[in-house]
Amino acid sequence: MTVPPSATASGPSADRGSDGLQALLRPRGIALLGISGRSENLMARPLRYLVEHGYEGGIHPVNPHYDELVGQKCYPTLADVPGPVDLVLVLVAAERVEDAVRQAAGVGARAAVVYASGFAEVGPEGVALQQRLAAVARETGVRVLGPNCQGFLYAPTGVVATFTAAADRPLAHDSGVAYVGQSGAVGGSVLDLATDMGLGLAAWASTGNQADLDLVQVSRELLEDPAVRVLMLYVEATDDGAAYAALARRARETGKHLVVLRSGRSSAGRRAVASHTGSMVGDDVAFVLTSQEHGVVLVHDIDELLAVAAVLATGKRSEGRRVAVVTTSGGAGSLAADQCEDLGLEMPELSAQTQDRLRPLIPAFGALANPVDVTAQLFNRGAHAFGDVCRMVADDPSVDVVAVFVTMVVGEAGARLAEDLVATAGKLPVPLLVGWIAGQELTTEGRAVFREAGIPVFSSVGDVVRCAARMAPPQRTGTVPALPRAPQVPVDEVRALVRAPVVDGPALLRTIGIAQPASTLVTDAEAAREAVAALPGPGVLKLSAGELAHKSDVGGVRVGVPAEQAAAVFTELLDAAKRHHVPDVEGVLVQELIPPGTELILGATAGRDGFPPVITVGLGGVTTELYRDIASGLAPVSPEGAWAMLRSLRAWPLLAGFRGAEPADVPAAVDAVVRLSQAIVAGGDRLTELEVNPLIVAPRGRGATAVDVLVGTTGPGAPLGE
Amino acid sequence: MTVPPSATASGPSADRGSDGLQALLRPRGIALLGISGRSENLMARPLRYLVEHGYEGGIHPVNPHYDELVGQKCYPTLADVPGPVDLVLVLVAAERVEDAVRQAAGVGARAAVVYASGFAEVGPEGVALQQRLAAVARETGVRVLGPNCQGFLYAPTGVVATFTAAADRPLAHDSGVAYVGQSGAVGGSVLDLATDMGLGLAAWASTGNQADLDLVQVSRELLEDPAVRVLMLYVEATDDGAAYAALARRARETGKHLVVLRSGRSSAGRRAVASHTGSMVGDDVAFVLTSQEHGVVLVHDIDELLAVAAVLATGKRSEGRRVAVVTTSGGAGSLAADQCEDLGLEMPELSAQTQDRLRPLIPAFGALANPVDVTAQLFNRGAHAFGDVCRMVADDPSVDVVAVFVTMVVGEAGARLAEDLVATAGKLPVPLLVGWIAGQELTTEGRAVFREAGIPVFSSVGDVVRCAARMAPPQRTGTVPALPRAPQVPVDEVRALVRAPVVDGPALLRTIGIAQPASTLVTDAEAAREAVAALPGPGVLKLSAGELAHKSDVGGVRVGVPAEQAAAVFTELLDAAKRHHVPDVEGVLVQELIPPGTELILGATAGRDGFPPVITVGLGGVTTELYRDIASGLAPVSPEGAWAMLRSLRAWPLLAGFRGAEPADVPAAVDAVVRLSQAIVAGGDRLTELEVNPLIVAPRGRGATAVDVLVGTTGPGAPLGE
Repeated sequence: MTVPPSATASGPSADRGSDGLQALLRPRGIALLGISGRSENLMARPLRYLVEHGYEGGIHPVNPHYDELVGQKCYPTLADVPGPVDLVLVLVAAERVEDAVRQAAGVGARAAVVYASGFAEVGPEGVALQQRLAAVARETGVRVLGPNCQGFLYAPTGVVATFTAAADRPLAHDSGVAYVGQSGAVGGSVLDLATDMGLGLAAWASTGNQADLDLVQVSRELLEDPAVRVLMLYVEATDDGAAYAALARRARETGKHLVVLRSGRSSAGRRAVASHTGSMVGDDVAFVLTSQEHGVVLVHDIDELLAVAAVLATGKRSEGRRVAVVTTSGGAGSLAADQCEDLGLEMPELSAQTQDRLRPLIPAFGALANPVDVTAQLFNRGAHAFGDVCRMVADDPSVDVVAVFVTMVVGEAGARLAEDLVATAGKLPVPLLVGWIAGQELTTEGRAVFREAGIPVFSSVGDVVRCAARMAPPQRTGTVPALPRAPQVPVDEVRALVRAPVVDGPALLRTIGIAQPASTLVTDAEAAREAVAALPGPGVLKLSAGELAHKSDVGGVRVGVPAEQAAAVFTELLDAAKRHHVPDVEGVLVQELIPPGTELILGATAGRDGFPPVITVGLGGVTTELYRDIASGLAPVSPEGAWAMLRSLRAWPLLAGFRGAEPADVPAAVDAVVRLSQAIVAGGDRLTELEVNPLIVAPRGRGATAVDVLVGTTGPGAPLGE
Repeated sequence: MTVPPSATASGPSADRGSDGLQALLRPRGIALLGISGRSENLMARPLRYLVEHGYEGGIHPVNPHYDELVGQKCYPTLADVPGPVDLVLVLVAAERVEDAVRQAAGVGARAAVVYASGFAEVGPEGVALQQRLAAVARETGVRVLGPNCQGFLYAPTGVVATFTAAADRPLAHDSGVAYVGQSGAVGGSVLDLATDMGLGLAAWASTGNQADLDLVQVSRELLEDPAVRVLMLYVEATDDGAAYAALARRARETGKHLVVLRSGRSSAGRRAVASHTGSMVGDDVAFVLTSQEHGVVLVHDIDELLAVAAVLATGKRSEGRRVAVVTTSGGAGSLAADQCEDLGLEMPELSAQTQDRLRPLIPAFGALANPVDVTAQLFNRGAHAFGDVCRMVADDPSVDVVAVFVTMVVGEAGARLAEDLVATAGKLPVPLLVGWIAGQELTTEGRAVFREAGIPVFSSVGDVVRCAARMAPPQRTGTVPALPRAPQVPVDEVRALVRAPVVDGPALLRTIGIAQPASTLVTDAEAAREAVAALPGPGVLKLSAGELAHKSDVGGVRVGVPAEQAAAVFTELLDAAKRHHVPDVEGVLVQELIPPGTELILGATAGRDGFPPVITVGLGGVTTELYRDIASGLAPVSPEGAWAMLRSLRAWPLLAGFRGAEPADVPAAVDAVVRLSQAIVAGGDRLTELEVNPLIVAPRGRGATAVDVLVGTTGPGAPLGE
């Protein structure tokens, strides 16, 4: 058993986890404790699979009722097994699992797979059982996969330690693609569909209830494995953001690809939060941003997971969003154009040079610009003509991915085309996606050619376009202008401020350097009048109360109040507070009226999930809520990142100078975004939300002013994280 | 040959088209003119297909070089063929087609299929050839399908008159589904994929260049055919909106379903137009609205076309957007929930009663609410347990469609489940969609069961969810309140006004009864001052010029000008006009300043494509353009329709009273929308665009005022349509 050289340089290989995991992947011997002798029993399958898939180490069934099973000598107890046992497959029921893991430890095994259900998924009793299992794992040092899992397979050593029916057939050649997921059912489907596609998985693991080993730990190990180049993950919960981020970072460092299917997107984002921005960004935004930061490909469906992985396994990845379509059907090309537009992909016109190269091959009633309609006549130009067209198209510098749509090219002709495309795919500088819009029966030969070569064949226009869209990098937002260096907020001062039982929002803004209007808290009508009279013009009067997030909802804000009306407005505001039963009214804030500008809303939210906080920006006012036109980034954000967020708003033209209007002070807005993002990081575990609403951005060169600020904190006793 | 009884009651059967079409569908004899004797030749195929697919009428190959072909006696010329020839398949090259159709007429044939390419698709010479072919068709009365088409098939009579390779295999049993499309390549794919699915097409036609018979004519005939219950269309261009609308209306009258795949959506909407709204609604909006009005199902891909048709062929159609998911995998259920949310489908929680009924069947670690996770243990409860669960779920009144996701239930167990679901599907009050997320090999038996029953099996979560989304009726927008009866604009007066060489927009608004601010056109500075002085307060000054669509772009609008500044502003506006080279400046319009309100933009556009004009409404100001938050309806629109348009805007809360603000005068806005929609209809072919921007909607009860109007017309000489 050798540890791959790459694993010694960095990564988790040196810890206890890696040793146990290596025992899973490369065991010298495997014992099957409680293996069933009845072949129709699910728990009889792992033995048969190990034998059938050619595992070459020791296979030791343990069952006192048999002398031999599937041609292997059977032992009455684990202790009777001769020779080394690195891995024990625990095939007994839940209540006997704890003892089984102790027995495994007793014979020197370093890993066990527990298949039984009846643990945390069934309620309190099961939770207790699972906690005891976890304790035994820690105590004995045996790493446990499961319980309530479908096991795993590792192709290089032939360890097929699962009971999924998907292993009940010859598996395809190892393709460098691996899979790890919690859900057993989804995992079975992935394995079976991969086999159908000819995509032999190098490794496959179902982590189940994760009493000990979890999805990220298994994935970290596989990333260090030279047999794995692309790792597919099916993720149900991401409650350890830091571990996920480290995994994603490591994937990029090792030059490997992560493709992640996350379920439960729609149920995320239902968190109760006080801020506008907090209620608008879903819980999964930190997950998505972290994934994007590290080049993880996010997909929405099981078929997309497999398709993207298969394409990445060919060693090609699209570097942009520009698709060229080559097709035998103008209709399919036109449908592809529609769907590309729907998913934000471009279909640029090919260069004149490329069109000149194509012209001799394609009849006049075809099309050269993109989509390239080769027409059926192309097939009269020899067995390589289609591939030649694809090469010419892929060589065009405006092309990031080539999508081929073939219709009724069937039988022998289909097989020849498949050979041509297989030979072509490897020579292209960009990925080649093949959609074959025809039934299976007439195209069996051609599909076999693709399958053998490990090239996925898509069966609809949409499947191809979705694959291209998922694989493409996020949409760019234009060239970032030169911006000042990032400011640095004073971390210690922020931390001191947020320790207070009630955090003083205006003081926090002062500390981090975001400008605010002059402001006085008054508690009687005459003081209100005096405060306004001291301002250069009319004032803004706002109800001030402890827990009043949406002041305007209760009529608690009055704008442009002249000194002579200030006393009356003061009284009205307090009356409104009474009418709406606003608690903890502290008085009325009299503020300088900031001249109109472009109003933004800035929000920073920090989850308790290990992911970095998220900074969000949107156009202020009702528009933000009606249109959810917001952009988010991971905090802290750089000036360039903040600019890109603003640039990606649909409302950007209002900042840039819409229809001849004066442009807003974008650098000042960028500065405020950067500072707020640093503040939430500095605030550690104590700050949950920071929101500036509105930030009034004056015309160019005249700054930006935070008119109101909202601070959300964990309870006063909550610890400050480092 | 009998004409179906339904065809005699109404529809096109009585005209020349129907007789010719009946000759296509039910010919007593078919001659194959120029049939190739070389079996590898595409043009040899129709003869073999007719024989193999069991056409029982006379089959008469015509080729002087053979005595017999595929067991059929061969004739030297068409004139030599004995017995009746109703249909001639013209298998000769383009230049001989004209003569061939004349020969067909000579032997009494009433229909011909022309396969040859080399017509309009190859350029001017081909266009001329095609025009001559059309002329011959008219002259002889022979109805021609093609040229440049792949022919057709009609299952009830066994006429398989095509050369597509998709007919080179046994076709499935007739399912009541038919297909008509222009593109030959897409048609071949549809036929082949349908056969794979077990969806035997009752009829299939490729209309090619449509020199004579077009897609709508063929479709009209098939709609009257009792063998057809669901008609799939692939549409590339819809230049005859009236014919399309009539087809859609007829489908609904006959209780049949139209499923339409239109390509070229993305290239639509690039029309050059002057109005904001006109530039925001795509060219295809009239097509989409017309389709929705008549219950046509619009799909985006070939696989969706087939899947939706197959579901509709079972006689079930979802009446709403509420999906219930039943699954063996919590993961698949969760993915389905995500995708439903993405596509605007609901997954309502099932009623307590339904959950109570389900509880005895599903273990505690499953899920009852929706998605229903039955867990693998359900299969221990007998062969009908899964079907029972589906029935209970489908009986819940909150469910419009049941989506089943099965993972690794394979082999015999899969086949039994398939039988259970096939038996169940027919008994449900709503459609049942089945997603089987597993490879083909282990599920062959079960898939065969579904195929035999004509129930489509989807292979991904997304495929199921997309099918449900396409099939569902458009999203509703709440309960329409009681509204006044529709006003009626004076049609004759509108028609008189729009006859003028330059249409007077304000006069038009007066005529149709949309309120406007008091307004005076002035041509010198002093008159501007006087005009403002005559107003109750400050005025609005606007540059008035013939062709000035976006006045604000050139700084041509000034709001809130007091009388003492009016003269200076007048001069500034004229200077701005000079600076921007604005042509045809007529002076400056001095208008009453309308108090602030909710600003809407209303636009009506009329295409030249036979579709009704379209009325569009959006929130006014920059927001409309930035967010494209608009809603459209077919003109004329009813008050209820106008209300629903407003209600569907994301900006609706601004009209309804956002955050305690006073609600706007929605009935006044509705009235203006209705009137504008009637005006564009009354304007006939002369009006191309009408836009009110903004319509300022005052608070409830205080009306709505059109501040500016833009009128687009066809050239002054254009005729007024009826």
